[in-house]
Amino acid sequence: MTDIARAFVPGHVTGFFTVDRNETPTRTGSRGAGLALSEGVTVTVREADERGVALNGEAVTVGAVERVLDALRVTGGVRAATDLPVGAGVGVSGAMALGTALAANAVFECGLSVNELTTVAHGAEVQAGTGLGDVVAQRHGGVPVRLEPGGPQHNEMDAIPARSRVEFVTEGERSTADAIGGDTGALTRAGTAALSELVREPTLPTFMTASRTFSREAGLLSEWVREVVTDVAEAGGDAAMGMLGETVFAMGTGLSDAGYDPQVCQVDPAGATLLPEASDPALD
Amino acid sequence: MTDIARAFVPGHVTGFFTVDRNETPTRTGSRGAGLALSEGVTVTVREADERGVALNGEAVTVGAVERVLDALRVTGGVRAATDLPVGAGVGVSGAMALGTALAANAVFECGLSVNELTTVAHGAEVQAGTGLGDVVAQRHGGVPVRLEPGGPQHNEMDAIPARSRVEFVTEGERSTADAIGGDTGALTRAGTAALSELVREPTLPTFMTASRTFSREAGLLSEWVREVVTDVAEAGGDAAMGMLGETVFAMGTGLSDAGYDPQVCQVDPAGATLLPEASDPALD
Repeated sequence: MTDIARAFVPGHVTGFFTVDRNETPTRTGSRGAGLALSEGVTVTVREADERGVALNGEAVTVGAVERVLDALRVTGGVRAATDLPVGAGVGVSGAMALGTALAANAVFECGLSVNELTTVAHGAEVQAGTGLGDVVAQRHGGVPVRLEPGGPQHNEMDAIPARSRVEFVTEGERSTADAIGGDTGALTRAGTAALSELVREPTLPTFMTASRTFSREAGLLSEWVREVVTDVAEAGGDAAMGMLGETVFAMGTGLSDAGYDPQVCQVDPAGATLLPEASDPALD
Repeated sequence: MTDIARAFVPGHVTGFFTVDRNETPTRTGSRGAGLALSEGVTVTVREADERGVALNGEAVTVGAVERVLDALRVTGGVRAATDLPVGAGVGVSGAMALGTALAANAVFECGLSVNELTTVAHGAEVQAGTGLGDVVAQRHGGVPVRLEPGGPQHNEMDAIPARSRVEFVTEGERSTADAIGGDTGALTRAGTAALSELVREPTLPTFMTASRTFSREAGLLSEWVREVVTDVAEAGGDAAMGMLGETVFAMGTGLSDAGYDPQVCQVDPAGATLLPEASDPALD
């Protein structure tokens, strides 16, 4: 048993998605596509007498993290650090859940595989109502395409072979639970159409076009998002709404070129991973 | 269309494996487990009037690469660069095939997904007789476990959640085609047993133990490999034979501690990926 372990989990901005509910949480999920981001969440887990979870130094209660610790039956201290905005639809809760699973497995020698840990984190996020597809996308990295919903035992993944600079801006928070909790028929029809389009031509430009069409047809565009996306298009760029947040993301320098002051990162190629510990001689 | 694209594909050292043949190349493959290595192959593809393939500056003919270019119906110049030893069972041919597929898809805008490109490279490697499981492992990265054989449409992957320093030494070449071409019944029985052991406890120590047992039971140990593995054990380390080469790999500083002068790298967390081009402003 090591005293402490750290994991990095990329952020994830979703371009389009479906809601696929099932009686079993690990079969529940979403199809869709998004971008794993080089900005993410670093999660540190250590042995502790009492459970405690902190995000950027402040004590927080994150339903998905609590459920991961319950499922693994461990009592640990969880510290998460991120430069990503919270509540903006860039996957902070999913990253905290998956990072907690990976790091706790290392500290407490739970002996679970990556698929099993992803299943635990995905199920926790679904049951907490805070996400449907982020965890499996964040485990994968790159530009993941979720062809079939659910955890790793049930889903099917592909990816777009691409790297790019990514810019995003966000304004205020939006509740994932509100958007995915009600009638999602129209949303899922729009998401299914977008996925078909992307499967026919798995490229970044098609991903952006399909995402813009989805946000219109699913009725999720706010006035602010619509304006920013239009500004980027008028400056010659390619932007779309990040699901589910008051968030717009653009390829390359799309938002900068349109006069915005975005957060800048890259597509993350690796997906979730344990981090080497500086103090571990085996990792020098 | 860009003029040039580059991909990095990690090396892959196999600890144990099975041979699972099928009439269809994309269903043929192997189960087993190995380590994706931070040392790998960088493959550059550019438009060219004539096909040409070079490895570390020398013209070469690599069956799997030829078949990838045939399958994509492109004429390109392929340059591969690596510090890995060739013919040592660390996945150079698989890396060249997968890197060619990823980079050629970008240069010639073939419009294929990562699964499709992996399928092309896996099928090419199988048909060339140079490998059965490296390509899908190299696409995945980390410590991939191949639960079911074949390309991405048919296989099933998991992984061990671990990072580590990896050392390896190699002496001479061994032909993959010779070892996997004949009667592989005993080998596959030993590989199946090793996989069961690892699935029960998906950790690095179990991976190393299962790999050592496999190499004995499959009858693949040479005298030199046996001596090196024993030397590492006597120095308190953990080593096993890299399949299929005159290669021994060890976790941490196992080979250094036993007095060898190994090549040193890390578990590669990312798997195969396109590389940003310095000249591409979208990737600044």
